[in-house]
Amino acid sequence: RRGEMAKSTQLIHNDVFRAFATYAAIVLLKMMLMSLVTAYFRITRKAFVNPEDTASFGKGESAKKYLRTDPDVERARRGHLNDLENIVPFVGIGLLYALSGPELSTALLHFRIFTGARILHTFAYLIPLPQPGRGLSWAVGYAVTFSMAYSVLKAAWLL
Amino acid sequence: RRGEMAKSTQLIHNDVFRAFATYAAIVLLKMMLMSLVTAYFRITRKAFVNPEDTASFGKGESAKKYLRTDPDVERARRGHLNDLENIVPFVGIGLLYALSGPELSTALLHFRIFTGARILHTFAYLIPLPQPGRGLSWAVGYAVTFSMAYSVLKAAWLL
Amino acid sequence: RRGEMAKSTQLIHNDVFRAFATYAAIVLLKMMLMSLVTAYFRITRKAFVNPEDTASFGKGESAKKYLRTDPDVERARRGHLNDLENIVPFVGIGLLYALSGPELSTALLHFRIFTGARILHTFAYLIPLPQPGRGLSWAVGYAVTFSMAYSVLKAAWLL
Repeated sequence: RRGEMAKSTQLIHNDVFRAFATYAAIVLLKMMLMSLVTAYFRITRKAFVNPEDTASFGKGESAKKYLRTDPDVERARRGHLNDLENIVPFVGIGLLYALSGPELSTALLHFRIFTGARILHTFAYLIPLPQPGRGLSWAVGYAVTFSMAYSVLKAAWLL
Repeated sequence: RRGEMAKSTQLIHNDVFRAFATYAAIVLLKMMLMSLVTAYFRITRKAFVNPEDTASFGKGESAKKYLRTDPDVERARRGHLNDLENIVPFVGIGLLYALSGPELSTALLHFRIFTGARILHTFAYLIPLPQPGRGLSWAVGYAVTFSMAYSVLKAAWLL
Repeated sequence: RRGEMAKSTQLIHNDVFRAFATYAAIVLLKMMLMSLVTAYFRITRKAFVNPEDTASFGKGESAKKYLRTDPDVERARRGHLNDLENIVPFVGIGLLYALSGPELSTALLHFRIFTGARILHTFAYLIPLPQPGRGLSWAVGYAVTFSMAYSVLKAAWLL
C-alpha cells in the first residue's frame, strides 16, 4: 500500500513531466498576474464596474462617476481573456503531451518557446507594441500547442 | 497488460490525489453552476443577447426589446469569468501539486481553504456583500494557488 | 530508475486514458479554432478593438472608424467564451474521471457524446440555428460533465 502510493506520486520524478510542471506553473502564474494588472489599473484610473467597489468614494453621484470603463483596464482584461483562451489549451494538451512519452529535448523546446511567446504577448499587449508584434507572439504560442496536440493524437491512436 | 492498466488507474488510490479529485470536482461544478445562475437571470429579467433566443417572444420590435443587458445578468457573468480566471489555475496547479508528493494534511488545508474561499466569493458577488468581503475571499483563493505553485516549482527544481 | 520513468509515462497505454487524450485534444483544438473564426470576422468585417490593429488602414479618423463592434465578431466571441465555460470543466473533470477507473465503453460514451454536442453547439451558435438547437446541445454537454463529476466524487469517496 505504501509502495503503491509512493509509485503513483513519482510522476514528478519523470524528467518530461517535471519540465511540464515547471513551465505550466510559470504560465499559469503569469496568467494570474493579469488579475493584479487589471486591479492596478482599476484603482489608479478609478474605473470600477461593481457599485459596492466604489462605496469608499462616498455615496450617490460622487461614487457613481467611478462606475465607468477605462481603455487601460479594458486592455488588461483583453490580455487576461487571451491568456485564458491560449494558456488553458496549452496546459491541457501539454499535460497529455508530457504523458505521451516525448523526447525531453523536444518537449523542452515546445514548453520554452510557448512560455517565451506568451510573456512576449503580454508585453506586446500592455505596452502596446505595434503590430505584428502581438499577432506573431500569439501565433507562435498557438502553433506550439497545435504541434503538441498532433503528437498527442498520433501517440493515442498509434500506440 | 491487465496489471499495467490497473496500476496506471490507481492514482485514485493515492490519498492526496483522491482529496484533489474531490475538491477539484466540487469547485468545477460550482463554476458550472454559474451558467445556470446566468440563465436564470436572463429568463426572469428577460435580457438576452442572441436574437434567436427571443424568437418565442414574437417577431420584430416586440422581441427586439428583450435584446438588452441587465445588471443581475452582467453580475452573474462577471462572477463566472472570475471563476474561470481563478478556478482554472487552481485545477492546473493543484493537479501538479497533488502529484508532487505533499503531506496529506498540508494538501487538504490548501484544497479546503481554496474551496471555502471561492464559495464565499460567489455569495459575496451575487448578494452582493459590501467590500472588502469579495476582495478578501478572492485574495485568499489567490494566495492558496500561489502557495501550491511555489511547492510545485520547488519540487520540480530540487528533486 | 529507467523502468520507473517508463512506467510513469505509460498512462498513455491505458485504454481509457488514451480515449480521454484523443477527445480532450479534439475539443481543445475545436475551442482554439474559435480564435481563428473571430480573427476571420474581425478582418472581413473590418471591426477591431485595439488601435494598433488598425494602423495599416492609415492614421487618425480613417483608421478610427474600424474600432467598432460587429455582430458576427461578437457572436464568435460568445461561442468562444461558452467553450471556455464548458470545455474547460470537461477536460478537468474528464481527466479525474479517466483516472478513476471507469469501464472503457462507458467512458467512450461520455467522451463521444460530449464531443459531438460541443461541435453541434458551435454550428448552432455560428449559423445560427433556431432555438432550442443551441440550448439542447449545450445541455447535453453539461449533463455529460455532471455525470462524470458524479463518478469522480463517488470513486474518490468510496474507494
